[in-house]
Amino acid sequence: MSLSARQWETPDTLHTKEWLRRYQRIRQASERLCQPLCTEDYVIQSMDDVSPPKWHLAHVTWFFEAFILVPFQPRYRSLDPVYDHLFNSYYETHGVPFPRPRRGTLSRPTVADVYRFRAHVDAAMVELLESPPPEHAAEIMRRVELGLHHEQQHQELLLMDIKHILAQNPLCPGYRDDLTPAPAEPPGELAWLEHAAGIREIGHDLQTGFAYDNEGPVHRQFLEAFRLANRPVTNAEFLAFIEDGGYSRPELWLSDGWQQVGQADWQAPLYWVQRDGEWYHFTLGGLRRVDPHAPVVHVSFFEADAYARWAGARLPSEAEWEVAAREAAGNVMHGNFVESGHLQPVAASPGADAASQLFGDVWEWTGSAYRPYPGFRTLPGTLGEYNGKFMSGQMVLRGGCCATPADHIRATYRNFFPPHARWAFSGLRLAREA
Amino acid sequence: MSLSARQWETPDTLHTKEWLRRYQRIRQASERLCQPLCTEDYVIQSMDDVSPPKWHLAHVTWFFEAFILVPFQPRYRSLDPVYDHLFNSYYETHGVPFPRPRRGTLSRPTVADVYRFRAHVDAAMVELLESPPPEHAAEIMRRVELGLHHEQQHQELLLMDIKHILAQNPLCPGYRDDLTPAPAEPPGELAWLEHAAGIREIGHDLQTGFAYDNEGPVHRQFLEAFRLANRPVTNAEFLAFIEDGGYSRPELWLSDGWQQVGQADWQAPLYWVQRDGEWYHFTLGGLRRVDPHAPVVHVSFFEADAYARWAGARLPSEAEWEVAAREAAGNVMHGNFVESGHLQPVAASPGADAASQLFGDVWEWTGSAYRPYPGFRTLPGTLGEYNGKFMSGQMVLRGGCCATPADHIRATYRNFFPPHARWAFSGLRLAREA
Amino acid sequence: MSLSARQWETPDTLHTKEWLRRYQRIRQASERLCQPLCTEDYVIQSMDDVSPPKWHLAHVTWFFEAFILVPFQPRYRSLDPVYDHLFNSYYETHGVPFPRPRRGTLSRPTVADVYRFRAHVDAAMVELLESPPPEHAAEIMRRVELGLHHEQQHQELLLMDIKHILAQNPLCPGYRDDLTPAPAEPPGELAWLEHAAGIREIGHDLQTGFAYDNEGPVHRQFLEAFRLANRPVTNAEFLAFIEDGGYSRPELWLSDGWQQVGQADWQAPLYWVQRDGEWYHFTLGGLRRVDPHAPVVHVSFFEADAYARWAGARLPSEAEWEVAAREAAGNVMHGNFVESGHLQPVAASPGADAASQLFGDVWEWTGSAYRPYPGFRTLPGTLGEYNGKFMSGQMVLRGGCCATPADHIRATYRNFFPPHARWAFSGLRLAREA
Amino acid sequence: MSLSARQWETPDTLHTKEWLRRYQRIRQASERLCQPLCTEDYVIQSMDDVSPPKWHLAHVTWFFEAFILVPFQPRYRSLDPVYDHLFNSYYETHGVPFPRPRRGTLSRPTVADVYRFRAHVDAAMVELLESPPPEHAAEIMRRVELGLHHEQQHQELLLMDIKHILAQNPLCPGYRDDLTPAPAEPPGELAWLEHAAGIREIGHDLQTGFAYDNEGPVHRQFLEAFRLANRPVTNAEFLAFIEDGGYSRPELWLSDGWQQVGQADWQAPLYWVQRDGEWYHFTLGGLRRVDPHAPVVHVSFFEADAYARWAGARLPSEAEWEVAAREAAGNVMHGNFVESGHLQPVAASPGADAASQLFGDVWEWTGSAYRPYPGFRTLPGTLGEYNGKFMSGQMVLRGGCCATPADHIRATYRNFFPPHARWAFSGLRLAREA
Repeated sequence: MSLSARQWETPDTLHTKEWLRRYQRIRQASERLCQPLCTEDYVIQSMDDVSPPKWHLAHVTWFFEAFILVPFQPRYRSLDPVYDHLFNSYYETHGVPFPRPRRGTLSRPTVADVYRFRAHVDAAMVELLESPPPEHAAEIMRRVELGLHHEQQHQELLLMDIKHILAQNPLCPGYRDDLTPAPAEPPGELAWLEHAAGIREIGHDLQTGFAYDNEGPVHRQFLEAFRLANRPVTNAEFLAFIEDGGYSRPELWLSDGWQQVGQADWQAPLYWVQRDGEWYHFTLGGLRRVDPHAPVVHVSFFEADAYARWAGARLPSEAEWEVAAREAAGNVMHGNFVESGHLQPVAASPGADAASQLFGDVWEWTGSAYRPYPGFRTLPGTLGEYNGKFMSGQMVLRGGCCATPADHIRATYRNFFPPHARWAFSGLRLAREA
Repeated sequence: MSLSARQWETPDTLHTKEWLRRYQRIRQASERLCQPLCTEDYVIQSMDDVSPPKWHLAHVTWFFEAFILVPFQPRYRSLDPVYDHLFNSYYETHGVPFPRPRRGTLSRPTVADVYRFRAHVDAAMVELLESPPPEHAAEIMRRVELGLHHEQQHQELLLMDIKHILAQNPLCPGYRDDLTPAPAEPPGELAWLEHAAGIREIGHDLQTGFAYDNEGPVHRQFLEAFRLANRPVTNAEFLAFIEDGGYSRPELWLSDGWQQVGQADWQAPLYWVQRDGEWYHFTLGGLRRVDPHAPVVHVSFFEADAYARWAGARLPSEAEWEVAAREAAGNVMHGNFVESGHLQPVAASPGADAASQLFGDVWEWTGSAYRPYPGFRTLPGTLGEYNGKFMSGQMVLRGGCCATPADHIRATYRNFFPPHARWAFSGLRLAREA
Repeated sequence: MSLSARQWETPDTLHTKEWLRRYQRIRQASERLCQPLCTEDYVIQSMDDVSPPKWHLAHVTWFFEAFILVPFQPRYRSLDPVYDHLFNSYYETHGVPFPRPRRGTLSRPTVADVYRFRAHVDAAMVELLESPPPEHAAEIMRRVELGLHHEQQHQELLLMDIKHILAQNPLCPGYRDDLTPAPAEPPGELAWLEHAAGIREIGHDLQTGFAYDNEGPVHRQFLEAFRLANRPVTNAEFLAFIEDGGYSRPELWLSDGWQQVGQADWQAPLYWVQRDGEWYHFTLGGLRRVDPHAPVVHVSFFEADAYARWAGARLPSEAEWEVAAREAAGNVMHGNFVESGHLQPVAASPGADAASQLFGDVWEWTGSAYRPYPGFRTLPGTLGEYNGKFMSGQMVLRGGCCATPADHIRATYRNFFPPHARWAFSGLRLAREA
Repeated sequence: MSLSARQWETPDTLHTKEWLRRYQRIRQASERLCQPLCTEDYVIQSMDDVSPPKWHLAHVTWFFEAFILVPFQPRYRSLDPVYDHLFNSYYETHGVPFPRPRRGTLSRPTVADVYRFRAHVDAAMVELLESPPPEHAAEIMRRVELGLHHEQQHQELLLMDIKHILAQNPLCPGYRDDLTPAPAEPPGELAWLEHAAGIREIGHDLQTGFAYDNEGPVHRQFLEAFRLANRPVTNAEFLAFIEDGGYSRPELWLSDGWQQVGQADWQAPLYWVQRDGEWYHFTLGGLRRVDPHAPVVHVSFFEADAYARWAGARLPSEAEWEVAAREAAGNVMHGNFVESGHLQPVAASPGADAASQLFGDVWEWTGSAYRPYPGFRTLPGTLGEYNGKFMSGQMVLRGGCCATPADHIRATYRNFFPPHARWAFSGLRLAREA
């Protein structure tokens, strides 16, 4: 379902049933993602950046409670006032969040309690959505839409975090054992697609549907002419970098990246292991041989940047990527998203004259630091902490990945991670001066 | 059941059924301790020193597998070879143990898997115990006895760790809600019991039944005359120390202790919180008001030492404690152990002319560093790592506590923790020069 | 002296004497800066980012040895081969640098040895500059020019580091006691200067004289219309932020900044101390009362960003700053540089219709992350490590400061520091949407 | 000079000139030790445990100022009140000490200032010692004696710290270049000397001359029969341990020691380096080949303990060592002390029937944790912090070393360091059960 700008502005015209169906569909999707888990899997925090799956399920629920039910539903009663502390992620103006690195010390509320919390909030939300108070209906619908996108974002985080949790375990448990690898086809020679210089409009126009605050406002950027690769870098190509000593040649690396390589003893992408001379990697389907034709994934910005330098190329800026993505996709974004069921990037056979896999498969590191666009304004109130306060120390990634819900992505969508992070499904596409 | 020296030396005379009953009784006790837990509680590692309950259950089982079944039962097949890595605690000569601080990242094997592992090993152990190969029977029985004491030790650790895990949680969940506090009776004025100077025999005589290697050999020590308090320090007494500025007066503290106070911002024993001017503490029965008459518990050696200095006294040496305990107890050790069901130290009313509560209630910090006795020999082979290698950086505690199984303690029993540790049920008893 | 592009390209036309004079002038300036130091001051490394003054003096000398004398002067003999290890800062492709955080453990070479090293290299450089081998003359002159700019950069670092070193000392020793504070005049109300939208050329044209590689190439950027403050933020203005609770309101801060505030307990700019209700700050002239009219200095990017948010404004992008600086300055950069002898920002009285203090006084934090311009190429070989490899995790500052040599600055000059760094002479100027 | 108990008790009978000579002799010895230093060497703190030499010179001076001049010399004026903060090492009840790990950030007071401080205090001390106020004379003399022993202790620390400072430097500068290695003679086979079981008096009798508080009171200990090696372990012997894989066999190590080996990547004693298959070590005379016959030095307690286990022996207890030392030495302690001018342990040729090198050469690790003797009392007031508060986490060493002043050592002297420390001149002597 796509919500047109008119509907957004005049929610009274929106069919109630459609909103409800959407709410229920997305809420159920989160729970479906967790079906393959054991109770124990829900509890683990494998590193500070990872949250226990049950925390994710509770936090996205808290979002609806804190920002919609408590302010707009006077009859609403919370199950436990401590939840407001436990499941606040980082909203400092709302209250003191429970310390992030301690999320893995919480055995209670139990998984069953969390599902009860979800049902409790869902019941109240359904009631509210069926007859929203007219004076708040517009604001409620805005927050519902934000809350649903927020939940979809956490669906991807759930898969990233589950993968990281299971990967720590010497038993190598798969998340699902019914995932079959995609057929491995050679993607063909990399081709370069030209883009002329000129002034381009970048960013999301709020009149045309939902986007996060950080995607706007629309503004002009001048782009010098550039060339963009027709597909992401593959495992085979990345392996050539490894075999050429990529991880031991300081001249290929940013200074911070080189320090990171040494400290963490990086020798390959995250989840790669070598056994008897063969490279394997841990996937959501368990340990598999690395598919040479699939896009490389779980590389940091530092590795992406070093690879590009080694290849005599560079990473695209986020504006370059956005221009190419709009040209390639129009308004239709095909790709290997979570719905395809691979949960792993797959090889593709692009033509030499069109960019492929811009959406799905792997988030593509850009060369752009995550900073506000000219004229950027955060949302009012506590929700202003959603995106804006993270605009330092991070790099932008674009395009979604094999764990992203298909209707969650946009050409203007700005994802961001610190340059050393690797547990996202992150890969890269090369760019060059024209 | 108490095993006489003769039985130990000639296991063939031991009734098989008695051994089996003992094995089963102690193994079942571990599982009974875990009955009040939710599945989620089994998974948490709240600090590096704490292990997830399911890890405890699996590790004590691995002990029987690794040291008895694998060497002495050729037909035995392990459920998963990785368990030998996951559940090896610290036996470096056996294999590379899974890193201790990462135990909380293991969602698998699940709790159900761990119980299956226990059943699998128990079945094999029962079979072995029913008809041990005669040429190995003596060694097998020695290791069974060690393994059962090892499991009892972990029963106490389970309660310590469960308490620590639950205490992290702002929901303050109790381990059991059917624990009723003991009646609080004033213990009366502290009295001093005199002990004359002289040569004393210290340590356990291996001819008289089981003991850990670190309790022997028997050797002579000369003790100058000393006086020992007739009971442990109470919460009311410790509160007087707090109120006299005990935590802010450097002259009362060892240098390392003072540094620890500052770094960790200690202002009271572990688990104490002040609400509206009243002191509460977290217990296995949930948050309770501090009982002034009960022995203070969850203090570190540093706090015990500072309290003693403040009180114009000192901690007893472990030899002094042992001499007093033998005089007081003979061979019968009464006390508030795990079987009493309090799971918390309780007030007692000692007479002024006899030492009370030497056993049970709280482990009593001594002033003795944990070092080998003259002539100490570790067990042969990998089991030599059981105790000896920890003989640096730790202090000795004596007497057991409210979480110790009654038949696990001895007058010669040497427990040990680093001087800053507080999550054991540790308290203190004062001593003085005569 | 300004070197025209023609001279750069055809160094044979450059008067040898002029080059020599320049070399000697800049080399002597470094030593003159160190004259007020005691021998002991030369040795200290007060934090990892700071280098001992004698290390600076030796490192800039090593630069000439390693990149000019060794490759181009066959007769040159180094004083000690270990110096090539000790004084290599971060050129990984040249050799393994001595670890930066250990520079403060080197008592030898002594200060006298370092001056001998300088004289030794200077003698060889003078000889080389008097008769450079014609086939290498162009490259030599390019590297001399780079080496001299490098040394000027370190002259500013010397003052920053000396200030930091002396500030650690409870004796509060001044660097010089002959520095008199500038007269404190109120700078008048802040005024906003408009800049229209349009395509602008940004960056340095290599045809027009020396610049670092990171300042080029010239490229086009589209700037939306913006307004820029006519002067930097003053101490009085920053004090209003402090008094309005600026350091305790999370909604004003980037997330990383807020964490930093908490960890480091920031409550004011670096070097500020409150005594009897008055604010003082440590300066190179010792402890002084804070001048309300002077620009605030020693604030981090995080503080600058939080101040701007509090003030309802933002930081300018580096392109906006550059456009304004070119309009304001033409080719002439006046300002409070190191030559003015204040060694501290001073108050100014700008007109309301022109930007003042763009150059000198304080480096101005921009909102731009330090990343390469489109088409950026590093210098060939080891010198390529000079700038490019630091292009992650840092923010750009513009305009030079009271410790910068006047002939070292340019409108295109890109300085950079991590967002938490405060020991540079860093301040801010506000910008706004038009 | 040896001060008899009578003199100590009745200082009025002590010849003033003798006291003055002693004061001046010891004070001058400190300065003489520093003569080979460059000014820069005085400033360095190469690790947290090391203090800059000028800090040592000032701190021992502060001791006389703070504990004698300020309380007993009303006319005394300090040079700078901040010195009392800077040069207080750890006396928390005296004031807040300047943080130890920051001592290396202090360029001021300069070396010359420190010598001025010494002269200033010396002048006042001389004046006081020439005519002490009779009512305080006894206490003054007690404190002078303590202050002089304190200064001698720091003379050894000076040499340890200077060695560590110079050893960090890739230039490998020697402290003195006029130190000639002692002739290397094979010490002969190790022999075991028997000691019968019995009650022994341990500790220093305060009636018989000066000792630190931690050496008393005299008390009885029962020692089981034991055997003690006739000499320390040599480099050749320790090399056999290394070559037998000593540093890679966990069964030889205490658990904390094994962890330390891994973390710090220990493969040999501190200061050892292998070049072309030969072992060298850094000495105060520069880098030298390891002398196989000399006692091994710069090993930690962990290494000493592991070596002893490998050799089928153990470390002596401090009581065992003291008994043997008293028998061997009577009241005369010969040995390789600082006065011998080697500043490095040297080989000796002991007879097989007497213990050699108990004093001097290397501090000998004992198996005893540093804890108070029965009846131990600290000095009254702030001086009580001198020794007692360090009685946790450390092990006792006995006998002095090649950097100890000969008249500073006693058979009862208890030195102590944490079990991982290696920068003292620490070695070991083996013991065994009889």
